[in-house]
Amino acid sequence: MSVKRVWIENLKQAAGERVRVDGWLYNRRSKGKIHFLQIRDGSGIVQSIMGCNDVPPEVFDLCGKLPYETSLSVTGTVREDSRAPGGVELLAEALDVHHVPSAEYPISKQSHGPDFLLNNRHLWLRSRRPFAVLRIRDAVITAVRRFFDERGFLCVDSPIFTPSACEGTTNLFEVEYFEGSAYLTQSGQLYNEAAALALGRVYCFGPTFRAEKSKTRRHLTEFWMVEPEVAYADLDEIMDLAEDLVVSILRHVLGTRRPELEILERDPAPLEKVASPFPRITYAQAVKVLREKGIDFEEGDDFGAPHETAISELYDRPVMVTRYPAAVKAFYMKRDPEDEKLALCVDMLAPEGIGEIIGGGQREDDLAILETRLAEHGLPREPFEWYLDLRRYGSVPHAGFGLGLERTVAWICGTEHVRECIPFPRMLYRIYP
Amino acid sequence: MSVKRVWIENLKQAAGERVRVDGWLYNRRSKGKIHFLQIRDGSGIVQSIMGCNDVPPEVFDLCGKLPYETSLSVTGTVREDSRAPGGVELLAEALDVHHVPSAEYPISKQSHGPDFLLNNRHLWLRSRRPFAVLRIRDAVITAVRRFFDERGFLCVDSPIFTPSACEGTTNLFEVEYFEGSAYLTQSGQLYNEAAALALGRVYCFGPTFRAEKSKTRRHLTEFWMVEPEVAYADLDEIMDLAEDLVVSILRHVLGTRRPELEILERDPAPLEKVASPFPRITYAQAVKVLREKGIDFEEGDDFGAPHETAISELYDRPVMVTRYPAAVKAFYMKRDPEDEKLALCVDMLAPEGIGEIIGGGQREDDLAILETRLAEHGLPREPFEWYLDLRRYGSVPHAGFGLGLERTVAWICGTEHVRECIPFPRMLYRIYP
Repeated sequence: MSVKRVWIENLKQAAGERVRVDGWLYNRRSKGKIHFLQIRDGSGIVQSIMGCNDVPPEVFDLCGKLPYETSLSVTGTVREDSRAPGGVELLAEALDVHHVPSAEYPISKQSHGPDFLLNNRHLWLRSRRPFAVLRIRDAVITAVRRFFDERGFLCVDSPIFTPSACEGTTNLFEVEYFEGSAYLTQSGQLYNEAAALALGRVYCFGPTFRAEKSKTRRHLTEFWMVEPEVAYADLDEIMDLAEDLVVSILRHVLGTRRPELEILERDPAPLEKVASPFPRITYAQAVKVLREKGIDFEEGDDFGAPHETAISELYDRPVMVTRYPAAVKAFYMKRDPEDEKLALCVDMLAPEGIGEIIGGGQREDDLAILETRLAEHGLPREPFEWYLDLRRYGSVPHAGFGLGLERTVAWICGTEHVRECIPFPRMLYRIYP
Repeated sequence: MSVKRVWIENLKQAAGERVRVDGWLYNRRSKGKIHFLQIRDGSGIVQSIMGCNDVPPEVFDLCGKLPYETSLSVTGTVREDSRAPGGVELLAEALDVHHVPSAEYPISKQSHGPDFLLNNRHLWLRSRRPFAVLRIRDAVITAVRRFFDERGFLCVDSPIFTPSACEGTTNLFEVEYFEGSAYLTQSGQLYNEAAALALGRVYCFGPTFRAEKSKTRRHLTEFWMVEPEVAYADLDEIMDLAEDLVVSILRHVLGTRRPELEILERDPAPLEKVASPFPRITYAQAVKVLREKGIDFEEGDDFGAPHETAISELYDRPVMVTRYPAAVKAFYMKRDPEDEKLALCVDMLAPEGIGEIIGGGQREDDLAILETRLAEHGLPREPFEWYLDLRRYGSVPHAGFGLGLERTVAWICGTEHVRECIPFPRMLYRIYP
């Protein structure tokens, strides 16, 4: 076949041309002498119209019987039609069948339970919903990379194998590392701090791991996080950065993934409304909100999911909550000079019940104080010696944050559970496929 | 201080302005009544000139004694000077010292042994060489992302926790996964195949792990790999893709990181010469080369480092070696229809002794053959059931490859060892810092 292969998402630019689409049979309607074939090729879905006189009779007959997910190539002419999804149809002239499924395709167009779909994630990816979610995830990743590239940040990957724990060892995965052992990283932050003091503005963007026994819709054992860190930045500066990043992500997704939001039946209006400035409130103000709403909460505790939801519901855009009690935050948080009991930290809570998508703050930059904090938190000194060095040799104020990729994608897509927002989710009871 | 902070890499655009540079004292020369201070801020180094009449006498005196890596802010006027690195100097008017190192900075301008430097990697990052290498690494990452974005590839992250091994379990890291265990991924390929059959053109770009007990200059236990996979592609098509990717990376680095190549004393000429087409030879032809060179080699074996070097030395650009004996390659490789004993695979060997930077090929797409291969390789069926499904439901020809990030960076930078090409290298005896 010498006909040019065109990806479905590019068909519109080939209107009027004779082309070949290589893909799979996604759906079919037949009306007497016409088959309406929905062909998917991973970049989109196109309707191909095959009349009984357009192809040899045996091909027409075969086409009425092919099971879904048969792999095939359709050659035909691209016709513009504003009513068709994607604006084009393919008038079939020839068909090549590559492989006919040897058993019935397990995923029907009817609904399945989540366990069944997750067990078949490798096939479920072919359905429209995962297609849309993963294309949006890809756009978020692109937006993040561009955002930091344009601002002169360097991508400095933090290590996955770590000897020390960022926030205690309770939720760490342990690995046999030759004769010894190592932990899988929970956050690249400590390494980011070394990198920022060397390279100014840096970010890491990779998988992180938490061995939490939680089975909530917000938890994965393996998830991706982007973490910028800036030398000579304070809390306010990284709050501006966090706000800009989120606005920039939404703009990119709204600019490039409208059809995908439509597939997900996600109303874009709440996303379109999100603009700077985001509201900024303190923990103390947030606690007052909870009181006023009559929600049970012990002042001094960290917020749980229902508290975050209650706070974020008040706003039509993400809200940044600052200055939590230092006692509920990690040892490296710098204290508020105006109130030693508070940390110079920020959590960004997304609207629509998503909760925390960003956590960050200013880091303690004084050697003696940091040594005290390590002791207070019962953490060993030795694995943190290198980290203390950053305060021994030219310490500077610095700050950063981490944005959880899957939670951000979940918010944008309006999905119930973060497990849909990563290609192959890993959870308490799931590492297959 | 209300003076605007400017990053050193942006100083040229601020010529003539009064600005503030926040950074660290990198080096100093004093000539009687003038200090020549080299200030680094992570984005670059600028020379600041401070005459004894430009600042109060106590500041001038202090400045002559400050140890290296003191963190400080210099306020002054930016003056263009074509002889200066970066094309500008900073005429100091005021100095703020933030933190004076409490001990002598361990890394002097003299040379240290690699172990010492690796033990102090968190500080070594501040030196010029790591600065240059990591900025080039960042540019390679950006080039890779842009390349795939522009071609309509989706980033589909493959999981790190896997139940099954891609190429046998010998070199796998095992993790305690709650009550069971999991392995850390060696390659995202198998998952990429599922993603490509769902989403057309995909790539993953993340850390991969090999528990090899090798202590060579080409090995890390944790390294980054970018792996594209394309549905309906054959070996030739992904060889074209691999070639375009490498050319595109080099063009981006040469276009944006010339000063960094200069710091590394890396002659850019060999990189500039690299253009399409790359030579393509078969394994059989490569063996002939080894014979002619009189190099000891058992035909049928895989190439080792010295063989790869000997082959790649013949060319001024990367060479692609195809059709290795199937026996030395993984179970999923499709066989050459013209010779069943050969695999439809390709290794790309970089010049200048770097060796393999890309490995890939076409995948076996026939269910029965793949089942036989699993058995031949002594691999269990159950963890691969999902992978076999990809051949049960609409199997198609597909192909892909993996490019090792650190080896590519090592080639571009002209570094001896890949350990310099990742921010925090992990090796057989090293997971600190």
